[in-house]
Amino acid sequence: MTTLNHQFKLVARPEGNVKRSDFNYTSEPVRDPVEGEIVVKNLYISLDPAMRGWMNESKASYIPPVELGDVMRAIAVGQVVASKNPQFAVGDHVNGLLGVQEYAYSDGKGLMKVDPKLAPLPVYLGTLGMPGLTAYFGLLDVGKPKEGETVVVSGAAGAVGAVVGQIAKIKGARVVGIAGGADKCRYLVEELGFDAAIDYKNENVMDALKTHCPKGVDVYFDNVGGDILDAVLARLARGARIVICGAISQYNNTTPPKGPANYLSLLVNRASMTGIMVADYYPRAMEAMMAMGGWIAQGKLKTREDIDTGLENFPETFAKLFSGENNGKLVLKV
Amino acid sequence: MTTLNHQFKLVARPEGNVKRSDFNYTSEPVRDPVEGEIVVKNLYISLDPAMRGWMNESKASYIPPVELGDVMRAIAVGQVVASKNPQFAVGDHVNGLLGVQEYAYSDGKGLMKVDPKLAPLPVYLGTLGMPGLTAYFGLLDVGKPKEGETVVVSGAAGAVGAVVGQIAKIKGARVVGIAGGADKCRYLVEELGFDAAIDYKNENVMDALKTHCPKGVDVYFDNVGGDILDAVLARLARGARIVICGAISQYNNTTPPKGPANYLSLLVNRASMTGIMVADYYPRAMEAMMAMGGWIAQGKLKTREDIDTGLENFPETFAKLFSGENNGKLVLKV
Repeated sequence: MTTLNHQFKLVARPEGNVKRSDFNYTSEPVRDPVEGEIVVKNLYISLDPAMRGWMNESKASYIPPVELGDVMRAIAVGQVVASKNPQFAVGDHVNGLLGVQEYAYSDGKGLMKVDPKLAPLPVYLGTLGMPGLTAYFGLLDVGKPKEGETVVVSGAAGAVGAVVGQIAKIKGARVVGIAGGADKCRYLVEELGFDAAIDYKNENVMDALKTHCPKGVDVYFDNVGGDILDAVLARLARGARIVICGAISQYNNTTPPKGPANYLSLLVNRASMTGIMVADYYPRAMEAMMAMGGWIAQGKLKTREDIDTGLENFPETFAKLFSGENNGKLVLKV
Repeated sequence: MTTLNHQFKLVARPEGNVKRSDFNYTSEPVRDPVEGEIVVKNLYISLDPAMRGWMNESKASYIPPVELGDVMRAIAVGQVVASKNPQFAVGDHVNGLLGVQEYAYSDGKGLMKVDPKLAPLPVYLGTLGMPGLTAYFGLLDVGKPKEGETVVVSGAAGAVGAVVGQIAKIKGARVVGIAGGADKCRYLVEELGFDAAIDYKNENVMDALKTHCPKGVDVYFDNVGGDILDAVLARLARGARIVICGAISQYNNTTPPKGPANYLSLLVNRASMTGIMVADYYPRAMEAMMAMGGWIAQGKLKTREDIDTGLENFPETFAKLFSGENNGKLVLKV
């Protein structure tokens, strides 16, 4: 009996929201590894907003677009099922760019071994993975919150935002999260210990910022862009630092992104707006993993994953990121 | 015979371009100084883009708006003609917020004595004044150009931009100026030693940036905002620093300012955009004055003033800043 590898291949550049018809769902037999190669059975696939950018034919992006006809790029954790590479043994768990498919071939470069005894595998895609590192370094290296300062984070119930807010609390800041819906806002305040949450779907963000940030915003960690970025710009404190991590509100736009009309608030407030790319911090990943591992062990840093099941559901599950339906780090169990 | 003090008083919040009817041109007798006061005869009035913001009823600004009915705020250099303040003698030359008028009363706070033997008086309003300090600290403290890097400056033939470009050259950077018109561009390259100039009125700025900045832009000093800011954002080098000094293209807008649609280039390029306010650097003014004084003496830093004559021409002369008709630091000789 032949084992089949089901795969999602990108066949069209999505316009606006991603549709099932932008992909071919195909299968091919799994082959043996060649010399130096391993075969990984994917267990959990990470669904991240950045993937939307990888689907575009943009040369301006930080990594090349996924070519039409190629397996959709994604981070995943899996288990080595065959190895002709002395660095990896059958049974090892690995984390890396393994794609939206059941089996991946790799020469091992860029893969990191992970230990399922130290943390559940999906956590390596969230708090102990790319989103967690993004939060850790973006907040601490660029945002640099000081004790008593006010930190605002958007996409606050998402994989990056929830970690940003909790680390800011650990560092002694006052933390206000912006998220969509009463459930998420309750989660931020009651479960994660945020000082306040703003439900952008049901509240006027400008007014709510005025209420919850009476002295202005010292650090803003932006995952969403658009009108929320503009609202926070209008409430900056002197010397504020804005960390630009993403702009999920803009990724499905078919028109050019909306620039922040209030950017001259940077001038008035001697504030900065700085973009970050987590890849720049990979050489320092150990530092973040040790710190975050410690906080998780102490119960100071909570993780939450939203796990859908079934590779075949990839397009619909991915769409949840943009409608905001996911609660916590969105993962697809293969 | 009574000496009259002619004054421009703001009587309307300008909509769009400033009109003569936004002011009353009035006169009143000059009175004697009260105890602790001096009377200054204004000699040269500085016309700066920031003054446009002071005319608006905005609470978001960094200093309060000029109240309706008040003398229009402006920096000027003048000579003390009467003094009841022991720190100032009749005949002293002073520089400060003396207003659009022939005579000003002051308790001396915020005034700085200047020496006309060391530099012509109008230079204290430009290269050795607020614009020069803005250029010096904005470029060196925030832009931080390294030898061999590419520095782009907009409003390059203006009071701030010309100094930015020349200091960047002194620091060993490759310098590209953006200005309006062939004359200004020729001036930048032939007189000030810029490596290249882009005439935004007659060239496609995007294409020209590609030609003149083949490795991308490392430092961008922005005086204009709008489409030019967006064009430069699209050409950033990795780790670029944008200094937001002003946005003259937006100051006369009657609609909200245009935000930079390409701001996500900050993310891709791990770049920053930081607003500066020259007032923050006043305590370090001596450092800049000594450095720039030295460069002027060595012929490395050239100054140019565009001097109109006649206080009564204030509204029309001020408008030249926004049409780009001025060549160098715009000054009104009283």
